Amino acid sequence: MTDFGLRDPSAAICKAVVLGIAPDALVVDISHEVAKYQISDAALLLWCALPYLPVGAHVAVVDPGVGTERRGIAMETVRGDVLVGPDNGLLLPGARRLGGVTRAHLLENAQYRLPVVSSSFHGRDLFAPAAAHLAIGVPVEALGREIDPATLNPLDWPEPELGEGFLATEVLYVDTFGNIKLSAETAHLAAALPELDPGSRLEAEVEAEVEAAVTDEGMPARLAVRWVETFGRVEPGDALLYEDSYGRLCLAENQGSLADRHGLRSGMRVKIRPG
Amino acid sequence: MTDFGLRDPSAAICKAVVLGIAPDALVVDISHEVAKYQISDAALLLWCALPYLPVGAHVAVVDPGVGTERRGIAMETVRGDVLVGPDNGLLLPGARRLGGVTRAHLLENAQYRLPVVSSSFHGRDLFAPAAAHLAIGVPVEALGREIDPATLNPLDWPEPELGEGFLATEVLYVDTFGNIKLSAETAHLAAALPELDPGSRLEAEVEAEVEAAVTDEGMPARLAVRWVETFGRVEPGDALLYEDSYGRLCLAENQGSLADRHGLRSGMRVKIRPG
Amino acid sequence: MTDFGLRDPSAAICKAVVLGIAPDALVVDISHEVAKYQISDAALLLWCALPYLPVGAHVAVVDPGVGTERRGIAMETVRGDVLVGPDNGLLLPGARRLGGVTRAHLLENAQYRLPVVSSSFHGRDLFAPAAAHLAIGVPVEALGREIDPATLNPLDWPEPELGEGFLATEVLYVDTFGNIKLSAETAHLAAALPELDPGSRLEAEVEAEVEAAVTDEGMPARLAVRWVETFGRVEPGDALLYEDSYGRLCLAENQGSLADRHGLRSGMRVKIRPG
Repeated sequence: MTDFGLRDPSAAICKAVVLGIAPDALVVDISHEVAKYQISDAALLLWCALPYLPVGAHVAVVDPGVGTERRGIAMETVRGDVLVGPDNGLLLPGARRLGGVTRAHLLENAQYRLPVVSSSFHGRDLFAPAAAHLAIGVPVEALGREIDPATLNPLDWPEPELGEGFLATEVLYVDTFGNIKLSAETAHLAAALPELDPGSRLEAEVEAEVEAAVTDEGMPARLAVRWVETFGRVEPGDALLYEDSYGRLCLAENQGSLADRHGLRSGMRVKIRPG
Repeated sequence: MTDFGLRDPSAAICKAVVLGIAPDALVVDISHEVAKYQISDAALLLWCALPYLPVGAHVAVVDPGVGTERRGIAMETVRGDVLVGPDNGLLLPGARRLGGVTRAHLLENAQYRLPVVSSSFHGRDLFAPAAAHLAIGVPVEALGREIDPATLNPLDWPEPELGEGFLATEVLYVDTFGNIKLSAETAHLAAALPELDPGSRLEAEVEAEVEAAVTDEGMPARLAVRWVETFGRVEPGDALLYEDSYGRLCLAENQGSLADRHGLRSGMRVKIRPG
Repeated sequence: MTDFGLRDPSAAICKAVVLGIAPDALVVDISHEVAKYQISDAALLLWCALPYLPVGAHVAVVDPGVGTERRGIAMETVRGDVLVGPDNGLLLPGARRLGGVTRAHLLENAQYRLPVVSSSFHGRDLFAPAAAHLAIGVPVEALGREIDPATLNPLDWPEPELGEGFLATEVLYVDTFGNIKLSAETAHLAAALPELDPGSRLEAEVEAEVEAAVTDEGMPARLAVRWVETFGRVEPGDALLYEDSYGRLCLAENQGSLADRHGLRSGMRVKIRPG
């Protein structure tokens, strides 16, 4: 997974480097269209995908700090996977999803890099070769010195706030359908609004930049949504709150883009209360 | 093939699920950039692609009704392929292209699904696992009860109209070059205009929303095109009608986007007559 | 590599054709999002990618002349690869990167094509089958008559001009990050400005269409850049000149799109002098 984009050849070059070292490797491209430099988006996509991927070596590169002092790392997880990439937080939510980090090593050993390491393309020169060597059986400790996982750069999703009769959370990711993945999971909603029944009407108040479709100008947008199991439970064009297929709360519109309709973006705050 | 988009990890997750069940499967991504919810676009792309794909299990998911009562199905074709997806018409033109449906089964057997089936991601939980099990030799009848193919939800392309000295047809798909795939095939043109010679001048009258480049305002656009074998037979910037590489009639511009120039979109009607 | 786009099924169909002929082939998609008809962009991407790809048969199709008299060719390189595609210059910079062309053959032999060759989709009918047959051991001379490599249609990148205290060059490619790949390589810069130290300030004067951010209106834009090793050596939002990971000079902005900020496009001329 990278933010390299599919028009450029960079992602394919990484794959070619892997296959040059590990010709029998099975390579799955998770996404190369992660929004540029958006470490948090990439972390969420990895969090979604990893449980469904076979145990293996996984490379993720969204790396605004390439060529600076930031470290290149490989971290082993409880499930047995090794995650490879820059030490900028990108890998940590995914690692926690696989049970947590058992150990972490630096990518130092010249034997498992390309012969020349550029200062701007570590995906090709450092990360892909490391993963390929892991795939052919090189042990993670051979890549470089062990480091204390507690020293890894963190990436923490904003904690939802459970208030009196409301749940306050944040937009983590806007997917290609315009559905809004929130930092809260279903358990948070159940804790904040314990008497919520399937089909209940809710109000989702979104912070001010949003085009105020259902309220006075200048006020936060208040979206009328229903807490339902899936899209087809509301009319086309209506909004819903549902648990997505990863256990995460999502706002969406049936057969439309809620993000486009209301200008929703990552980082916006959303307060959910009975409507 | 899906409308999941390449920025999100959903298509990769489906592939990972397949490879988890069938590690030796050869997976070809037809497209994951089908326009959202456009069942008809997806049906056409499948119709184009299937004859060139090796015989196998093919999954297509454009599924605005996910989580509702619509059925999940596997249909066997005369060529020996099995098409897997929602019963919303998406699979039928492709199935006819492979000789027609020999039998159809519901995707009911829990053994061939993921352990938990979500209400919003059947590509991952239902369709990909079914195809993967077919790939490793599970027979189609093991997936669930047989249903009568006559009960499958239809998807019919608009029949061309063969008039006195004209052929009336409809825009089925606008490709990434801005070329216009029509519902008519070459045989329809030959039947409507039997005296047409290669190189002949034609007029393509497109229904009114189109920017009227060559006619009075408010009137249908009338495009001057030539009936030729391929792009290079007209000057760059000129319009042509040709038989595309699938036997389908197409309108195009040599080295330009006819769709962008004239605002052409799926569903528009086009009347072709001698020019 | 093609300009077919990932929404359409064309690239997948080519891959399916390859796998139908050579089921064990390892296929790497370099890019199918090359800008439509941009032979020069495609040539640069191939030049970047080929050294990192395993030795093999490589197909590239950006082919505005499909169906006309332009030839289909396979050219063998010193490294042992065979490049397959239209004879429009697309393959030549890549071939030179692999040591040069040892011999070239036409794609004539009907045995190594699809049974029917359309006039608009030679990627599927001609180029993919040729590469697949090469992959299973068919020798390049079996594909058709040998032609003199000197008769291949050329594609030459603009030669940089080394002046008194300046280097004049041209924008070859704008990547998905908005970084600007120049026709000059680092050796040209060293020859033009021999006393340049890492960290030096430079001025990049870009021809007139560019939005004049740092100069009077109507005058060429003059960008203040620093000659540094990598992005992180300047502040976010500042511009740099660096040697990219392929040995090519690039202009960029740390964590931003220099192309978007200044309207930079392929073909623009850039003059670099001490700033």
